[in-house]
Amino acid sequence: MAVYTDVSDEDISRFVAEYDIGDVVSFKGIAEGVENTNFLLQTTKAPFILTLYEKRVNPDDLPFYLGLMDHLSATGLNCPTPIHGKDGVALRRLCGRPAAITSFLQGMSPRRIQPHHCAGLGTALAQLHTAGLGFEMHLPNALSVKGWRPLFESCQEHADDVEPGLGKMIGDEIDYLEANWPHALPKGVIHADLFPDNVFFFPGKEDVSGLIDFYFACNDLLAYDIAICMNAWCFEPDSSFNVTKAKNLLSYYGKVRGLSDAELAALPVLARGASLRFLLTRLYDWVNTPKDALVTPKNPREYITKLRFHQRVENASAYGLD
Amino acid sequence: MAVYTDVSDEDISRFVAEYDIGDVVSFKGIAEGVENTNFLLQTTKAPFILTLYEKRVNPDDLPFYLGLMDHLSATGLNCPTPIHGKDGVALRRLCGRPAAITSFLQGMSPRRIQPHHCAGLGTALAQLHTAGLGFEMHLPNALSVKGWRPLFESCQEHADDVEPGLGKMIGDEIDYLEANWPHALPKGVIHADLFPDNVFFFPGKEDVSGLIDFYFACNDLLAYDIAICMNAWCFEPDSSFNVTKAKNLLSYYGKVRGLSDAELAALPVLARGASLRFLLTRLYDWVNTPKDALVTPKNPREYITKLRFHQRVENASAYGLD
Repeated sequence: MAVYTDVSDEDISRFVAEYDIGDVVSFKGIAEGVENTNFLLQTTKAPFILTLYEKRVNPDDLPFYLGLMDHLSATGLNCPTPIHGKDGVALRRLCGRPAAITSFLQGMSPRRIQPHHCAGLGTALAQLHTAGLGFEMHLPNALSVKGWRPLFESCQEHADDVEPGLGKMIGDEIDYLEANWPHALPKGVIHADLFPDNVFFFPGKEDVSGLIDFYFACNDLLAYDIAICMNAWCFEPDSSFNVTKAKNLLSYYGKVRGLSDAELAALPVLARGASLRFLLTRLYDWVNTPKDALVTPKNPREYITKLRFHQRVENASAYGLD
Repeated sequence: MAVYTDVSDEDISRFVAEYDIGDVVSFKGIAEGVENTNFLLQTTKAPFILTLYEKRVNPDDLPFYLGLMDHLSATGLNCPTPIHGKDGVALRRLCGRPAAITSFLQGMSPRRIQPHHCAGLGTALAQLHTAGLGFEMHLPNALSVKGWRPLFESCQEHADDVEPGLGKMIGDEIDYLEANWPHALPKGVIHADLFPDNVFFFPGKEDVSGLIDFYFACNDLLAYDIAICMNAWCFEPDSSFNVTKAKNLLSYYGKVRGLSDAELAALPVLARGASLRFLLTRLYDWVNTPKDALVTPKNPREYITKLRFHQRVENASAYGLD
């Protein structure tokens, strides 16, 4: 969380005047989103979220993200809806940065994940994948199997500082995944970062109330998105894998979009890839984040443990499926 | 700004159930307040602010702060109103910390101070001082003239690291202020930290829409609060003193609560004291904040310049009064 860009009361008043959303009455930086600066903007009409896109987001990709949210909202999915200015344009500039206002979503991210959260997540993820099928823009996943080797090479020399032998482990894993990646599985739009922070629930309810933060969304294997969620939602704080949670995720997903035998069979390799992807980006950030940065980098070790777990998995029955 | 304490969705749901304010629908850490952790809490009824009091606030002083906000709100002043639980209690505990919910104030802090802001500030400050006269609790100001010498002694050895000769300058100034402090001026409740961050306006409006952050409030000389505001609002970014702003602050203040000749005559010494107070706390924080802290300490130099300005002032006419 961080507010990277300071926006003055005059800046925001001028900016809001470009929309038909009432007058600004309150404006507060919020601790949400690691890559961008987010403000909760209250106008005389409603609450909104204002996002300023900081340097880690490629401005060329913003039309994809905003177009996707437009598309998903139109299908009835609960995600931030880009608000278009009086001139029809959603992607604007503020304080020298690309910026957009989106609708405000109610609900809260769960901190202590329960099996019922994983059931709701499974349903919402499959709804997202289904809704995304009609979206016509295309953005390849820069953080899928082709991107891992160059990313690793940029921080390889520091890998063994995190854990002796980590460099060799990652190199071997990239060899394995490049040789065994299931390229032929069903493709579509994936969220690619659906951690609990990005999923809202109402207290005590199973159904997801909304999905946020589509700034890693891209086109890739749909089942790869499930593998990312399995890693993010189904391990306990003590690093043990909770089969009940995984079973809920997979079975509720399957009720909305049926998983093929090929997708199920590929889950272990996809989960290894999903582990490696976050291990690599965390390793990169760990090595490259200055000590005085506004954001503390996440420790890569968590994903070493997850990768080792999936390396030992023989088939998808380890994830709770019969 | 910082969120020092993580509050889970389950914690907040349980906590909100102790009040009659509806059910929680959203809950976001906000970048407001340096000392405490603040959340914007949206319930089915209204938006609120939840504050968790962190270690820099003395828990023994919290009944004074909350009682003061209760009192000021009852007089019609726009400040956060403490929300009392179903049991009548406003000061509760959450995640091991004292915590309170207050009403949400509309408006925004100005970033680029205009003379009209200082007029509105003068009116609001005098209204605050007048409204505070009926408040019966008492909290001495730990950061007034008696507190400066011990505070300086705790960080004296590092003063010259900020600027050569600073140690001697501060020591001499404390001698001067202890000998010349105008103890007999009118006393009452002061805000003591009324920087622009803590004052809300609606865009383009002169009137203050609300005052926040009463966690330095105390009993002291009312005119000392004016001196603090003069320092915080009437210097330009290039360190020059803007007489028009000071004149607005003082004259609009005087329309609500007339300033005595003794108060006007004491303004230069009070302004020196107000400069020294923030110079000392910033010096202390500069010396004592670890490099990896969530909050970056403010540079003390700004207040060296302000102190030097007031040392050269001969009488209150330098502040724009005839």
